[in-house]
Amino acid sequence: MNKKYSIKDIAKLSGVSVATVSRVINDNGRFSEETRKKVQKVIRDTDYHTNFSAKNLRMNKSFSVGILVPDISNYFFANVVQKIEKILFKQGYSTIICNTARDEKKELAYLKMLESKGIDGLIVISGAKAFDISKLKTPQKIPFVCIDREPKDKQNTVFISSDHYQGAVEATNSLFEAGCKFPIIASHSRTSSSSSYRLRGFKDALAKNNITYNKSKNHIVLDSDNITKKLNQFLELEPQIDGIFAINDSIAINVLSALLKIGKSVPKDIKIIGFDNDPQDIHSYPTLSSIKQDTDKIAQVTVDNLINLINHTGITGESITIPVSLIQRESSK
Amino acid sequence: MNKKYSIKDIAKLSGVSVATVSRVINDNGRFSEETRKKVQKVIRDTDYHTNFSAKNLRMNKSFSVGILVPDISNYFFANVVQKIEKILFKQGYSTIICNTARDEKKELAYLKMLESKGIDGLIVISGAKAFDISKLKTPQKIPFVCIDREPKDKQNTVFISSDHYQGAVEATNSLFEAGCKFPIIASHSRTSSSSSYRLRGFKDALAKNNITYNKSKNHIVLDSDNITKKLNQFLELEPQIDGIFAINDSIAINVLSALLKIGKSVPKDIKIIGFDNDPQDIHSYPTLSSIKQDTDKIAQVTVDNLINLINHTGITGESITIPVSLIQRESSK
Repeated sequence: MNKKYSIKDIAKLSGVSVATVSRVINDNGRFSEETRKKVQKVIRDTDYHTNFSAKNLRMNKSFSVGILVPDISNYFFANVVQKIEKILFKQGYSTIICNTARDEKKELAYLKMLESKGIDGLIVISGAKAFDISKLKTPQKIPFVCIDREPKDKQNTVFISSDHYQGAVEATNSLFEAGCKFPIIASHSRTSSSSSYRLRGFKDALAKNNITYNKSKNHIVLDSDNITKKLNQFLELEPQIDGIFAINDSIAINVLSALLKIGKSVPKDIKIIGFDNDPQDIHSYPTLSSIKQDTDKIAQVTVDNLINLINHTGITGESITIPVSLIQRESSK
Repeated sequence: MNKKYSIKDIAKLSGVSVATVSRVINDNGRFSEETRKKVQKVIRDTDYHTNFSAKNLRMNKSFSVGILVPDISNYFFANVVQKIEKILFKQGYSTIICNTARDEKKELAYLKMLESKGIDGLIVISGAKAFDISKLKTPQKIPFVCIDREPKDKQNTVFISSDHYQGAVEATNSLFEAGCKFPIIASHSRTSSSSSYRLRGFKDALAKNNITYNKSKNHIVLDSDNITKKLNQFLELEPQIDGIFAINDSIAINVLSALLKIGKSVPKDIKIIGFDNDPQDIHSYPTLSSIKQDTDKIAQVTVDNLINLINHTGITGESITIPVSLIQRESSK
C-alpha cells in the first residue's frame, strides 16, 4: 500500500507513454478524452498525485526560474527570453535573467548565485562550450532545459533548438535558385553548436550543387573589425563570388553595408541572405532575406518542458528540433 | 562615548560636504590629499568606520543587485544593463535582470520577488509611471537608484538621466541649421519622463526659431501600426514639412523606411534625426543622424551611487544629468 509510484509506473498501468501521462497531468497537448479518463483513474487509484504534490511541498518551491543568456543585446536571444518570461509569468513564475557575456567564470558565478536564490528551474541559452551543471553543490536538484546549446550530459536535460542545418540548406539553395554559381559563407571566428550546424548545412548544399567546400575559397571569417577591408581583399582574390550566406543577420547587415561601400550592387552583383529574421532586415537597403526561427514555438516548448521537469512529470534525454522558414526579400532576388 | 556617528556628523566635524566624505571613503572622485587626511582622521577619531562595517555585517549582504528594465529588446536599455552588469561583476556583485514589459502588475511582482531573494540594492530603468517602492514590506531596507525614470519620492533615491532636453534642442537646431523651415516631431503615444523632456526641448527649439508648437501641425504620433499610411496622410495635409525629429531611433528607422516607400528623398526632400545612436543607424540608407547617450557614464555613475548607498556612504535626493552628443550622418545633411 505504501509503494511510491513513479510516472513510469503510471504510464505502464495506464498502457500509455510517459509523455502522454505528463500531458494529461499538465492538461497540455493532444490526447483523447478516453486516455485522459484512463490515466486520471490510475493516478487516483495509486495516489500518485498526492505523491508529487507532497514532493513539491517538500521542495519548498520559490516559483522563480533562472535564465542564462550570453548576450541580451542579440535580437534572437532577447526575443526568446521575453517570450519565455511572458509565458512563465502567466503560469505564476518569475524569471531571473542573467547576462553571462559569453564568459565561463561569470556563467559559473551566476549559476551559483541562482542556486543560492533557490530557483525551481533553469533555462540555458546558447554559448560557446557545452553546458555543464555538475559544478553546482546540488546539480541534481535543479531541473534545466537547454536552448541552442548542447549540454555535456544530454541525459539530464531537454535540448531544444531550431533546425539550423535545414535553415542553412534552404538559405544556400535559395542563392543557387536565384542564379548564384559561387556562393560563400560569412561567419564569426567564434563557434557554437548552432553555428556548426549552419556551416554543415551550407557545405552539404554546396555538395548537392557539385561544389566541394574549400575553407580558403568558400568561407570568410568576419569579426567586428575591418569588415569592409577584409571583404574587399577576399573579393579581389575570388572575383567570381556572386552570393553570400551570412551565418546571422548581424553579420549580413555588416556585409551589406561593406558591399555598398566597395561599390558592389546587391542583389545584382552579389546576392545575400542572413539568419534570424531580425526586425532591422526590413529597414536595410535593399531589404535583407533571412531564415526565420520560430521563437514563439521555442519559448512555448521550453517552458512546457521545464514546468514538466519542475513538477516531476517530464522526461529528460529528449532533443527537440523546431522548424525554420525562409523569408525572401530584395537582397537575394 | 557611545554616540553613533552619521555621515553628516563626519562631514560637519571635517568641515567638508557629505558628498566629499563619501568620495574619501570610497576613494572615488576628486579631493585633495589634505581633505583625505582630515576626513580619515575624523573617521578614526569617531569610530565611524567600524559603525558602518558592523552595519554591513548585520545586514548579511548577498552581493546581488536587481535591475528592473521595461524592455530588454530596446537597444538603449540592453546596452546600459550590460555595462552595469559588467561593472557590478568586477566589484563582486551579481546582477539579476527582470524584464517588466512596461506592466505595472508585473513590476510589483518582480519587486517583491527581488525583495524575497535578499538583494542588496536595486536599479530601476525607465517606465511610463513614476516609480514607487513603498509597496514593499521593507522598502527602506533596499537602496535604489533610478535611471531615466523620476521616482515618486526623490528624497529616497538618486535619479540619473541623460540630458534629454538638451539632446532634443540640439537635434532640432541641427535640422534648422541644415536649412529646414518646418520641422516636426515624431513620437509614440506612450509617454515617459525622458520623452516629455525631449518634447519640451523640441518645443523650445521651435520657439527660438519663431515657430509656435501646434500639436496638430508639428507633432505626429506613430505607434507600430500603419506608419507609412499615417505619415503619408500627415504629409498630404502639411506638405511644407521638411524635417523630422524622431523621439528615438526605432521610430526614426521606421519613418525613414516609410518616407522611401512614399517616394520622398532623404535628406533632399525631408531631413531626419533620431535619438539613442542605435548601432543600426550606420546601416540604414541613408545613414541616420542621432543623439548619442553616454551609456558608459550612465552605467558608471549608477553603479557608483548604488554601491555608496549600499555601503551607507552615499546620499540620496540628488539628480544627476549626463551630457549627450550630436552625431551627424547623411539623413540630416
